[in-house]
Formats: sequence, structure tokens, C-alpha cells
Amino acid sequence: MGKRFEDPRMAAPTTAEITAHTIFSERIQTIPRSFIREILKTALEPGMISFAGGLPNKDLFPVEALRIASEKVFRTHGGDPLQYTSSEGLPELRAYIADRYKKRGVKGVSPDDILITSGSQQALDLLGKVLINEGDRVILEEPSYLGAIQALAFFRPTFKTVPLTEEGLDIPALAEALATPAKLMYIIPNFQNPSGISYSKENREQVAEVVKKTRTYIVEDNPYGELRFRGEPQTSFKNLAPDNTVLLGTFSKTLTPGLRIGWIVAPPALMDKLLIAKQAADLHTSSFAQRLVHTYLVDNDPDVHIAKIVAQYASQQMAMTQAIEKYLPSSIKTTRPEGGMFLWATLPNGISSMKLSDAAIANKVCVVPGHPFYVGKKDVSTFRLSFSCVDAPTIDEGMKRLAKAVRIACPDA
Amino acid sequence: MGKRFEDPRMAAPTTAEITAHTIFSERIQTIPRSFIREILKTALEPGMISFAGGLPNKDLFPVEALRIASEKVFRTHGGDPLQYTSSEGLPELRAYIADRYKKRGVKGVSPDDILITSGSQQALDLLGKVLINEGDRVILEEPSYLGAIQALAFFRPTFKTVPLTEEGLDIPALAEALATPAKLMYIIPNFQNPSGISYSKENREQVAEVVKKTRTYIVEDNPYGELRFRGEPQTSFKNLAPDNTVLLGTFSKTLTPGLRIGWIVAPPALMDKLLIAKQAADLHTSSFAQRLVHTYLVDNDPDVHIAKIVAQYASQQMAMTQAIEKYLPSSIKTTRPEGGMFLWATLPNGISSMKLSDAAIANKVCVVPGHPFYVGKKDVSTFRLSFSCVDAPTIDEGMKRLAKAVRIACPDA
Repeated sequence: MGKRFEDPRMAAPTTAEITAHTIFSERIQTIPRSFIREILKTALEPGMISFAGGLPNKDLFPVEALRIASEKVFRTHGGDPLQYTSSEGLPELRAYIADRYKKRGVKGVSPDDILITSGSQQALDLLGKVLINEGDRVILEEPSYLGAIQALAFFRPTFKTVPLTEEGLDIPALAEALATPAKLMYIIPNFQNPSGISYSKENREQVAEVVKKTRTYIVEDNPYGELRFRGEPQTSFKNLAPDNTVLLGTFSKTLTPGLRIGWIVAPPALMDKLLIAKQAADLHTSSFAQRLVHTYLVDNDPDVHIAKIVAQYASQQMAMTQAIEKYLPSSIKTTRPEGGMFLWATLPNGISSMKLSDAAIANKVCVVPGHPFYVGKKDVSTFRLSFSCVDAPTIDEGMKRLAKAVRIACPDA
Repeated sequence: MGKRFEDPRMAAPTTAEITAHTIFSERIQTIPRSFIREILKTALEPGMISFAGGLPNKDLFPVEALRIASEKVFRTHGGDPLQYTSSEGLPELRAYIADRYKKRGVKGVSPDDILITSGSQQALDLLGKVLINEGDRVILEEPSYLGAIQALAFFRPTFKTVPLTEEGLDIPALAEALATPAKLMYIIPNFQNPSGISYSKENREQVAEVVKKTRTYIVEDNPYGELRFRGEPQTSFKNLAPDNTVLLGTFSKTLTPGLRIGWIVAPPALMDKLLIAKQAADLHTSSFAQRLVHTYLVDNDPDVHIAKIVAQYASQQMAMTQAIEKYLPSSIKTTRPEGGMFLWATLPNGISSMKLSDAAIANKVCVVPGHPFYVGKKDVSTFRLSFSCVDAPTIDEGMKRLAKAVRIACPDA
């Protein structure tokens, strides 16, 4: 059986190809289509069980509450939320977000520090635009979120990766990486995508200590932070290294992604530049979607809704961990995240997860092989499993199929 | 009386300032905040009559029809339009747009050629990303749409401008500009912002003839094309120079801007690259907003709604032209657009429109002085007047005030 997928990242054009006469920009020719996008098409094939998706569970969207909120927006605000608005975003929504940070113990976030973005993906594009010159150094976790690698790669930085351990960032590697100036480091300290890893209290303090000696921005992305199943919430880098920290947030995992409402928290000098970039990028984020989200948040208790998501994801994560123990050889190591949507698995003896992925698809189950989450690695032993959209019986059946694929593709595992 | 505004474009930092140690990218330091943004704040002062805005008239938004459409979206589609979706956009909406082009006589646009963007502003950002290397040549109309100058300037092209005449582009100047290869030319052939000018049939044919000999993309932006008061619709460059033409579209002026739904029509090789850029920029445009617009379009007759907008804007444009004839000296020349939202005026003898703008504000009326619509010009004699959001009596009173400002600031006009 041949490989189902070639990773287009690895098929980057040669310099000769780039410099050959072409109408396209150099930057676009080095950026691949998303590999995951291709595998997600496969995940839709009939009879396939997918642990590959990165989607929140649609069945948990508060459709009826949003319907009521939408009705209220039209009846209360008329044409106002349908008109152009300011690039910064709806003042009431920015005030709500600032207040929620305060309630969660994140200090020093005022509404003026917040820019509403078209999903937190856009925040990465804006940060790249205002910070990165070609060749500037950008630090990433290894593995890192694929969407961040893609967005930042447009600005042609030099990526430097710092390994993730079960505790968080590898501190000696971080110190070494920061010995040369870097513009920013992009991290997801809570229930990271793809690994599910969270930074411990000690690790956060050590990271902050290292970064505070530099001018590097910590870009703390936190899409999953509110989806905690177990353990104690950890403090934000905004409290530990306030001058260095930029926060990214989103309603995509706690409410719904389809409205595309995210935000960025940045100090004034940076915010001033981000605002110029936001104007040029899309003028402003949908005024209607902003008003709709704000109305929902005010008229409902979002924490009650989040508790519902947490309960379901926690039980599915438990089911997945149990199925792994039941079916997979113990030589395959998996993380046990305290929240979020993902588990991260490692095959023994350097076995290729691409090989496993191909066998898995043949057995009607999908995972995401790990290499798209690395910079410049062709093949790795890691793979990602998502538990957000699969119920316990499906998880059990899917893991049985995956175990079969392991026996075929990795008989020595 | 001192100048109320400094144009920040003119206060661009020196090279020494740029190369001084800073965390920001070089590109962001050369892009000014929008001058218009500042003047629009002034327009909100109590008692001010504003001809400065560029907004569609909020009173014409079909609020009730959109409310009903929203209700239907929630009841019919449940959580689907709240989930992540494909970067290309909603297939039904893309099919609708393709069909509308066909009905309007624009040939060769299939749904696969269409990418839904977060407003047509985003299309400019995506085109810049995939086409422009630093120093590449980009051709603009003179004057040109400010938002396009801003979006494209991020990619640090060399701008070359081609003057607009009452007939369209100056053909000898265009031929000269295209003698050196250019990546794209950005034009608004129908009721241009800021000038209100439309290209004649002959001018379009001449432009197409010149461009077809090159690999330059004509980026035809058409936000106002459906808002025609008089005269015959002119053909799209997609019919005249199909291989060279990229179309930009938007629902902002014919429906509502607050949902941020625009689109781009591009040939397959370019579309492939645009899609990668779209993914990295914001994953996709709000799935809910796309479904809402599509539902509205299918359940209503958008042409009936557009006819209502056209009737009101036409009558306001007439009132403005009459007030100009009644109050302003005949030495001030103005365009008489056959559609759209703007008039363009020119003061005699090289008198500065910044000077007039300051005097106008002192007399409680706002216009937009012309220089933000030029590349690299500090002061010009032109200014923009918008008639979309002012009724006839307000226009009359505002023009009286403007005439007073003319007598003060430009006594020789």
C-alpha cells in the first residue's frame, strides 16, 4: 500500500523554481496547503471514524440561545450592527472580555488593550505583519499549532523550536533560543494543540524569568484554557511577565467558531500598529457577529454552558484513555491532558506515524500524523488524537481499528 | 486658524528612524493611520453636516428581511452555520454569485472561481500577499481608493499612478506605465471612489487592448456597479480581457457592510494561492454571515431592494448637484456621476483643499480633502463629497456652509 498523502511542506520548491519567472510572490511559493485539510477530506469518507478533526463538538453549540440573541439584536439595535464600525471592535464586547480577565485573576487588561479579530487566526497574521521582517527569529513550541506556523511563515521568519516536555517548555533550550534576539515566541500553555500539554506553575515561572530579560513578546494563545477537566487553573504570563506578554483569545471553543470572533490583548505601542494592520486587512470584524456574541454573553451564563462542554469532553477523554489502555500496546505513550480537545501519542523505536496513518485509513479510522506540527521535519513518530467529536462507543470501536492498524504497520510496537 | 489635521502619510519616518533599533517590522512603520478615520471623528461633532463619510445609508438596510432570514437560518440549519467551514466559502453563496454574474452578462465565472472574503478589503490583502514582492510595480488610478493604497502598501510595492479623466484611464499614460512589467493594476471602473468617474465603452476597450499584451492582472473592484442612476451599464473587463482579469465584489453597498461578506473571482492558478493565503489569514469568513446573506438573497428580490437604494441616492445626488450650482462659484468643477455615492470637486488655481477643509469644519460642514487618495502628494485642489447619507434639505444647508468656507479660505475661487 502506497502513501495516501504527500506532505506538501516537504515538497517546497527549489530556489531555482522560485526565482524562475513567475507572477507569484516569493512568500506564497514557500507556503504549503494545509496537510490536515487533505486528511479531513478523507475523514468524511463513509464509515470512517475520525480522531483527526480539530473541531469543537457541534452538538454543544447553544443554537437556541443564539437564535434568541439574534432576534434581540435585530429588534433592539436595528440597522446599527449592520453598518460599518470601528476597527477596534464593539466597545461593550471589549469591556466584557476585559472584565472576564479580571474575574479570572489576569491583571492589567483594560478594554483599550483589546482588539477584536476575525478569529484568533487573524491575530497571528496581524502580529506577523507588524513585527516580523524577513529572517527575524520566531520561537515556537515543538510540536506547535499548525495554523500559527502557516500564518507566521508568510512573513518569512527564521523559526527556532523549543521542545515541549510534560511540564512545559524545556528551560535550557529556551534560554539558548533566547540568547539570540527573537521577535516573538508563540505558545499555548493550556492543553496545547496538538499535544494536550499544560505548563506547570514552576515551568511558567521559569519561562517568565528567562523571557523577562529580553524584548521578545510571549504570544500566549489560550483557545482551550476554559475547558479544564481536572487540576488547578494556572496563571497567565500576563501576570508573570506583563511587559512581554500578548494574549490571544477566541470564542471558537467555548461558544461557536462560525461567528469568527477572537481578540488580541497588546500593550499600547503594539496596539497602535495592530490597529493599522487590522484596518488594512478587513476594516473590522463583523459588527453583527460581535453584537450577537455580546448579547448572548450578557443574557446567558456562559459558565453554565462551558461546564456542559467540559463535562462531555472530560468523559470522552476518559473513554479515549481507557480504550488506549485496552487496545493499544503499552509501548505507545500518550499524554493525559487535564483539558482541551487533544491527546498526543508517540510510537516506540522511531516508527513513522505516516505509515500508521496510512494503515489506519485502510482500517477506516483517521488520526493526524505529527509532522505538520513540526518545522522542517519530514517524518516523526507522534500523532494527534481528538476526542471532542466522538462519543464513547465510537471511541472504543475506533481504537480497536487503530490497534489493528498498529499491528499491521508497526508489528514491533 | 491652524490646520486641524496633519496627514500622517506625509510624516513618514526617516530611514534613520526606521533602521533605529525597534521591535516593529519595517513594513508597518511606513503605513500611516487613515487620515479619513480622523476626519470622520470630527464629522461626529454636534451640529456638523458631513459630506465626508463613505458609508452606505443605514436607513436603507433591509433589517426586517434580515431578521426573518436569521430566524430561518437558526431554525433550518441549526448548528451547521456555527461550525468551522471551508476556506473557499459556502458553496450555495458562491453558486448564487456566479449565477448573478451570468445574468448580468459577465462571462466565464463558475462557482469554483469564487472565494468568499471578509469584505472586499480582505481581497486586497490576499492579492498583495500572493502577488507582490518588495519593489514590484503596482498600477493605481489617480486618484485611487485609500483602502487599496493602504492594503497593498503593506507589501511594499512601487506604486505607479495613471490619471483618471472623465472618460476613464488616460491611455497614453497607461501604455507608458505598462511598458515596464507590473504585477497588478487596481481599478474601480464604475462610479469610482473617490471620483465618481466611470470608464466609457471606448475607454474600456482601449484599456483592455493595452493590458492584454502584458501579464498584469486587472483587479476590477466593483462595489458600486449596481448603484446606477442613469446611462447604460458597461461591460466588465472579465469580458474584455478574461485572462488578465480578477474581479472583486461585495454586498456592503447593496445589502449591508456589517456582515463583512465580499468575494474575489480569480483564475485557477491564482485561486490556488489565494486559498492558502485565506486559510492563513482567518481560516474562513463567518459561516453564519454567509448563510444569512444567502438565505436573504434567495428569499427576497435583491433587485427590488437595490432599486430603492438607487432611487434615494439618485435623488440625493441630484440635490447635491443643484446645491453646488446654487451656492458654489462656477470655478469649482465637480463630476456628475451616473451612480455610486460620491462627487469629486476641484478648486481653481491650485487652491489647497486642506485649507478649504479647515474652513469648512469651522463652518460646521465636513468634506474629505483629496490628498489621501493620491500616492505621495502632500496637498491637492481636489476634495470628495458623499451624498449617500444626507437628505436634500441637509445637503442644501451644508452646501450653504461650504460656500461660506470657500469665500473665507479661497476668496479668489
